[in-house]
Amino acid sequence: MSELRKDPIVNRWVMMAPERAERPIQIAERQRQPNIEFDPFAEGNESETAPELLSIRRADSEPNKPGWRVRVVPNKYPAVQRIGEFERRHEGLYEGTCGFGAHEVIIECPQTEPNLSRLSPQQVTDVLTAYRDRLIELGTDHRLAYAMIFKNQGTLAGASVHHAHSQLIGTPFVPFTVAEELAGCQEYFEQHGRDIFEAILEAELHSRSRVVLETPRFLVICPYASRVAYEMWIVPREPGSHYERIGSSDLEELGGVLKTVLRKLDIALDDPAFNYVLHSAPFHQPRLPHYRWHFEILPRLTRLAGFEWGSGCYLNEVLPEVAANRLRETIVD
Amino acid sequence: MSELRKDPIVNRWVMMAPERAERPIQIAERQRQPNIEFDPFAEGNESETAPELLSIRRADSEPNKPGWRVRVVPNKYPAVQRIGEFERRHEGLYEGTCGFGAHEVIIECPQTEPNLSRLSPQQVTDVLTAYRDRLIELGTDHRLAYAMIFKNQGTLAGASVHHAHSQLIGTPFVPFTVAEELAGCQEYFEQHGRDIFEAILEAELHSRSRVVLETPRFLVICPYASRVAYEMWIVPREPGSHYERIGSSDLEELGGVLKTVLRKLDIALDDPAFNYVLHSAPFHQPRLPHYRWHFEILPRLTRLAGFEWGSGCYLNEVLPEVAANRLRETIVD
Repeated sequence: MSELRKDPIVNRWVMMAPERAERPIQIAERQRQPNIEFDPFAEGNESETAPELLSIRRADSEPNKPGWRVRVVPNKYPAVQRIGEFERRHEGLYEGTCGFGAHEVIIECPQTEPNLSRLSPQQVTDVLTAYRDRLIELGTDHRLAYAMIFKNQGTLAGASVHHAHSQLIGTPFVPFTVAEELAGCQEYFEQHGRDIFEAILEAELHSRSRVVLETPRFLVICPYASRVAYEMWIVPREPGSHYERIGSSDLEELGGVLKTVLRKLDIALDDPAFNYVLHSAPFHQPRLPHYRWHFEILPRLTRLAGFEWGSGCYLNEVLPEVAANRLRETIVD
Repeated sequence: MSELRKDPIVNRWVMMAPERAERPIQIAERQRQPNIEFDPFAEGNESETAPELLSIRRADSEPNKPGWRVRVVPNKYPAVQRIGEFERRHEGLYEGTCGFGAHEVIIECPQTEPNLSRLSPQQVTDVLTAYRDRLIELGTDHRLAYAMIFKNQGTLAGASVHHAHSQLIGTPFVPFTVAEELAGCQEYFEQHGRDIFEAILEAELHSRSRVVLETPRFLVICPYASRVAYEMWIVPREPGSHYERIGSSDLEELGGVLKTVLRKLDIALDDPAFNYVLHSAPFHQPRLPHYRWHFEILPRLTRLAGFEWGSGCYLNEVLPEVAANRLRETIVD
């Protein structure tokens, strides 16, 4: 028998239907291996990208030349650009604006390697440091309300270049999903006098059935109302609404945590496509006692279909307790 | 330069970035043709499905035997089942329930044909009639608040069986997307004293740049803030909040409209995968003056990636004006 679960933060229902995993699918699909002819993100090809916005590189190296470990560049095909002002334009019923915003690419390593999880923990920490530093810089732009960092790993997750990279899109408004999450957290705080993430961590550490990994500063869980099979959240154990205020020792530990859980995913599910997103508080808000930044990792094992599009509900065929157990027991080399 | 557009009904922003369509994609992907060994939905194979809930069939034929044109059966691998009651269960922080609901399959034709658009207008009308009749029946179940009808066409849209079919999922709650849409429509009605769909149709008929097809009773548009390339909405020109109250002559005209626009999509984009969803008012609500049922057709030409997952914003590379023009000018055989 299936069950329905409601997300504790937002108004989102998930149908957990493990029996459906047994149905025959007429087409089995595997992620195809890319045939890389040329890697525009590799060391030595710096001229293929726009000039760098940030790099972590050897002290004796020059910008836009080899010698870097992580490099952030503007997206060559930007969805939005940081030009002009955000002015809402009304055309009768409709509201729009010019495409103001920031669209950047975080190149995660100099070598041709498609998968962040195969980098060293220190390299992953460098990537997480670049995230922080870009958020600090973009947060000084009064025109931007938010910047979302996300990763598309594998074709099935929307990647079009197969060198390990993540992206950042800065917007003049707070994206809907984040606004909804903030509102849900605030409501819980007003009703219960505590941060809902604290309550979630407490519940998860008590039951342990959805815990994937526990370190001194972080907890990785498969959330109670996981939208997709093997969804994982990385949540800091101490309060902190803005990721850009993370300290160096947290960054170092987080690098190891992110690498470990992505490796677990790769080993358990044979290098699946996945997305991750970093949710953090909006730029121009003070420290929020009711919110905590976190990573949401979403493997793309099945496709979103009409029901999810039309309803905003999700259909998940793997219980988070089953997923967490498998990931927890997957030994990382 | 790209632009940002806000949906007039819900709080959803879309980034229109036509330049991005020019970027190289390292892996071109085509929908693979299924290799159908056995068609469980074909006429003659009625015993492969659960007993039918409804069929449109020859007067001299028997249930669950050949002689039908459309057949509705319970999903063999249901996400939810119509057993027991919907009782919310709280486990501390978390809220859930047993998997109560309805999950049905509408088999759209007796022959092995994967595409609804290749059926005759009368066959499409039969399908639309089956939708109506199932909603009427399910609406008498006090435990169900809503039933969503949707279609997954093609592997990339989540289809697992390649015989033309749609599905229905009935839920004990109103799905989030519909609730949000209803709230947006009500807010507009309270502010402007009129149905927002009336305002949208008026604006679209005035500019005509996003109109794909116009018939006496329906308008098909690419909406202003289209989430995906070639998104289309079929909207009735007269008010009507509940699809299940549609009249026979509307059904007949709608059959031709749906067939025509899906054919246009097939011809213009070479049989793309797509989803469609029918949005209608919840069962146990009176006729709503501020709402109108409609179909939303969502081609699946690109994949949802991390940004969409994380933000609830969409990135669309084809302006709806360009899409509408192309679809409008596509001649249907």
